[in-house]
Amino acid sequence: MEALGSTARTRLHRVPKAAVTDRSALHAILDEGLICHVGFVSGDTPVVIPTGYGRVGELLYLHGSPASRMLRALGAGAPACVTVTLLDGLVLARSAVHHSMNYRSAVVFGQARLVTDTEERVEALRRFTDHIVPGRWDQVRQPDAREVGATAVLALDLQEASVKTRSGPPKDDDEDYALPIWAGVVPLALIPAAPVDDPRLLLGLTPPLAATAPRPHA
Amino acid sequence: MEALGSTARTRLHRVPKAAVTDRSALHAILDEGLICHVGFVSGDTPVVIPTGYGRVGELLYLHGSPASRMLRALGAGAPACVTVTLLDGLVLARSAVHHSMNYRSAVVFGQARLVTDTEERVEALRRFTDHIVPGRWDQVRQPDAREVGATAVLALDLQEASVKTRSGPPKDDDEDYALPIWAGVVPLALIPAAPVDDPRLLLGLTPPLAATAPRPHA
Repeated sequence: MEALGSTARTRLHRVPKAAVTDRSALHAILDEGLICHVGFVSGDTPVVIPTGYGRVGELLYLHGSPASRMLRALGAGAPACVTVTLLDGLVLARSAVHHSMNYRSAVVFGQARLVTDTEERVEALRRFTDHIVPGRWDQVRQPDAREVGATAVLALDLQEASVKTRSGPPKDDDEDYALPIWAGVVPLALIPAAPVDDPRLLLGLTPPLAATAPRPHA
Repeated sequence: MEALGSTARTRLHRVPKAAVTDRSALHAILDEGLICHVGFVSGDTPVVIPTGYGRVGELLYLHGSPASRMLRALGAGAPACVTVTLLDGLVLARSAVHHSMNYRSAVVFGQARLVTDTEERVEALRRFTDHIVPGRWDQVRQPDAREVGATAVLALDLQEASVKTRSGPPKDDDEDYALPIWAGVVPLALIPAAPVDDPRLLLGLTPPLAATAPRPHA
């Protein structure tokens, strides 16, 4: 397993033990997550926007309207920080200050590249669709040339990335373990409910099995 | 219902119809969410970090080690952007490019204030704990003066905030509604599983009911 690149930005100052330095952990988080939070600077102000994404190899693709503020800023070369967080559980300790959450998060730094090559744009659109539901691209109407051209696609290299996780039981102060207070973890997961048909759905169609399978789909 | 403040930063340029301009919608998102993504600028670089939080009235509280990079930056007056996103469903359209997600998100801009008043710090710690599990603060060992002093607490005013949501079925192109492709929404929710006892739990203790209740707890 290749180590994640370590730079002044991705080095974890406070909790170095929480850093995971293999790329498979990074990929697993990005593939299991559905939305990322994209940070960029507008004037002197940080802006954090949630959006979908897709990973292909060592690239993370973002997309949207070419007129969106985020796409314009990133397409013009503004430094970006893209964070994906999976919330795995509530950590209930015996003392208030040791309450916490179990999670896995990935933070990627870099400058995005505006994707101009048509083939790469189509590949990114395929990945966005299959990221929402595996195999979906092959089941739906694929975009025509006009639609491919109307979507701005950005690629962010995963070279400068860090992974941070917390798992396991709470960590209480030694003397607090004797307290008669329940402590432990309440696992959390993003669970799909029964699909809701589109009001204009043709008769006799059923949802794809992959859409209702338990996540993670990675 | 009071309108959210509208500034150049919070005005939604692309999808003004997606803006929700009442404070109860903002509060509901912040109260249902468990983690926020905090954006700040370090050098020229945006940084986006996931963390817990708590809301009290028109204030959002953050906390952590006084030595953490985020707490130091925000405590020194760096502009912040705090975003909370609730993922409500996968939106499966008949065409690839109309795939989307249903969500509710809140974006708050401002400069955080370092909370020095002890009473306000304790109130914020109470809110962090009760935000994880309602009523938890009164069931656990509450922090002593040393613990209250060792935690950095920041307050961010909710004055400059915007809410954006998507809900409902996919929006396909008119001619695509005739295609024999399933379309609709797969609802998603963060669901708690059975609590896992701490390995050092005393005998005879059971988890608090509120920890296993379906979220949202708002």
